[in-house]
Amino acid sequence: MKLGAVILAGGRGTRFWPLSRRIRPKQVIDLTGAGTLLAQTLARLDGRVEPELRLVVTGPDMEAAVRAESGGATVVVEPSARNTLPAIAWGVWEAARRGADIVLVLPSDHHIARPEALGAALDEAVRVAASGALVTLGIKPTRAETGFGWIEPGADGRVARFIEKPPQAVANELFSGGKHLWNAGMFVFRVDSFRAALAAHSPATAGALAALDAGMALAEAWSATDATSIDYAVMERHNRVSVVPLDCGWSDVGSWPALDEVLPAAPWGAGVCKEMVELNSAGNLVHAEGKLVALVGISDLIVVDTPDALLVARREDAQRLREVIAALDARGLARYT
Amino acid sequence: MKLGAVILAGGRGTRFWPLSRRIRPKQVIDLTGAGTLLAQTLARLDGRVEPELRLVVTGPDMEAAVRAESGGATVVVEPSARNTLPAIAWGVWEAARRGADIVLVLPSDHHIARPEALGAALDEAVRVAASGALVTLGIKPTRAETGFGWIEPGADGRVARFIEKPPQAVANELFSGGKHLWNAGMFVFRVDSFRAALAAHSPATAGALAALDAGMALAEAWSATDATSIDYAVMERHNRVSVVPLDCGWSDVGSWPALDEVLPAAPWGAGVCKEMVELNSAGNLVHAEGKLVALVGISDLIVVDTPDALLVARREDAQRLREVIAALDARGLARYT
Repeated sequence: MKLGAVILAGGRGTRFWPLSRRIRPKQVIDLTGAGTLLAQTLARLDGRVEPELRLVVTGPDMEAAVRAESGGATVVVEPSARNTLPAIAWGVWEAARRGADIVLVLPSDHHIARPEALGAALDEAVRVAASGALVTLGIKPTRAETGFGWIEPGADGRVARFIEKPPQAVANELFSGGKHLWNAGMFVFRVDSFRAALAAHSPATAGALAALDAGMALAEAWSATDATSIDYAVMERHNRVSVVPLDCGWSDVGSWPALDEVLPAAPWGAGVCKEMVELNSAGNLVHAEGKLVALVGISDLIVVDTPDALLVARREDAQRLREVIAALDARGLARYT
Repeated sequence: MKLGAVILAGGRGTRFWPLSRRIRPKQVIDLTGAGTLLAQTLARLDGRVEPELRLVVTGPDMEAAVRAESGGATVVVEPSARNTLPAIAWGVWEAARRGADIVLVLPSDHHIARPEALGAALDEAVRVAASGALVTLGIKPTRAETGFGWIEPGADGRVARFIEKPPQAVANELFSGGKHLWNAGMFVFRVDSFRAALAAHSPATAGALAALDAGMALAEAWSATDATSIDYAVMERHNRVSVVPLDCGWSDVGSWPALDEVLPAAPWGAGVCKEMVELNSAGNLVHAEGKLVALVGISDLIVVDTPDALLVARREDAQRLREVIAALDARGLARYT
């Protein structure tokens, strides 16, 4: 059976402003100095999925930046953002058209510290999927996170249930129980299993794929899909969903403070710069490619330098970058967003 | 009587790192967005001192940067730094050689908010100096500053005494008395009065000038001068020293926090940048020419961006820049200092 991959690269990623922009979102910036997350995601497919069977699905704003980081993969551009189900359905359809029987669906903007562990889990997931199940990879959790969906494994590797972003008390229980896993949006399934599941749970989207089969233009078929997530529409409803556990140093790198999870710790904090000189500084997140950075008496700040914009923010205010972007757009400074 | 000017532009200015560097010290950086302090100092001479009679005295490291900001003035380069007396003596000698009878001696790295008030005081100082006195301009103080020398005015515009950097209690008295003035290193005198004073108080330096008259090379004469300040060697000892009060919005812009004195106050602080977007920020000093700066929850910081180095420091740590520079030099990173 031939493996294809659908890489979801349509995310906006405002939380890494000013390094990330509308036309250059999180998946195509180099957060760690080791290349972009998209390029790293594709590199992890080497030896597993041929370049011609790699489909990168993105949006029109960021198409140029995504193409530049996609190597030999095929980049397809959504007519409009309609959540993950249409993106995955179209990507699977394109991969199948190119000869794929089994498809890996992977986000393009996550960090994996131990790629070999991911590889082993993907191999296992392919084996399970070959039997007809839709497979989700379940990340071994490292904290009682309320921002992720959780997976409760059942008998025989089946998913017993999906738990949407839980309140803190529930997250604490899930984490301390040691049994539940995080849903990271990584899926493996046979093309025919997926299309059957789609027919059962999202007939409109299944119908759009059938229309593509019959020669309808994408733009037309696209508007007939269900604008929803694969989790909500399919994974949470299907009767044959399995989970393969994964412990690979995963991080979704959700905001500047998450750089702590993916970069080595230094006395002054973590980050990327050419040289660092610091006095009495700790807990900072720095991104200033090619520059000397001097920190004097600075704690728990986010410092991000780019050619046209400089951010200095309290670490605890990382979520307020949305407000900064909104203020810029409102002031006619959208060229910075 | 023909006016000449000696502009002292040899200062190192480590306190504005990373904007100021060994080869580009404080007097030749644009701190305010209104041009360099040296260029502003020279512009204030327009209509008062012909360009050919303007002497800019500087050091070898910074010669190129000083020349670039000196317009039609003559730049002369000290063989070595020997404090203000030799620099002024040589500058006066060069100005006299070009035809000056009366010389204004001015630092190149001070900010003047109201140049017209300085102009009026210089005119008055020239009148007083024409009678033979050495004249110092005395700044009307705005705080009980311990870092400056103070002047006690006496009868008939004479200086009763100079008071070296006083302890805080004394500074408080001097300030609250409302009579004393700050010594800002701005002098006006006739060339012949100055040379007579030099002969009386620093015969070695007077002898060096006589040797220059007789054709000795500067490098040789230079080493015969007294390496001391004009204040200590001449002004504090001479019997005909007058003071002209000056209230012109003067600042010596001694460090980043002093930008508050010379730039308009904004809710987030003061500084220079292309655009500012801020949330919940106050009391900061920013220098990021040409850039959008975003501050989120940031108070009392110094943020300075340059093409190769970025400084983020607590305002109260402004004096620790010396340590940063020492650390860079020690780590073989003198290219940044």
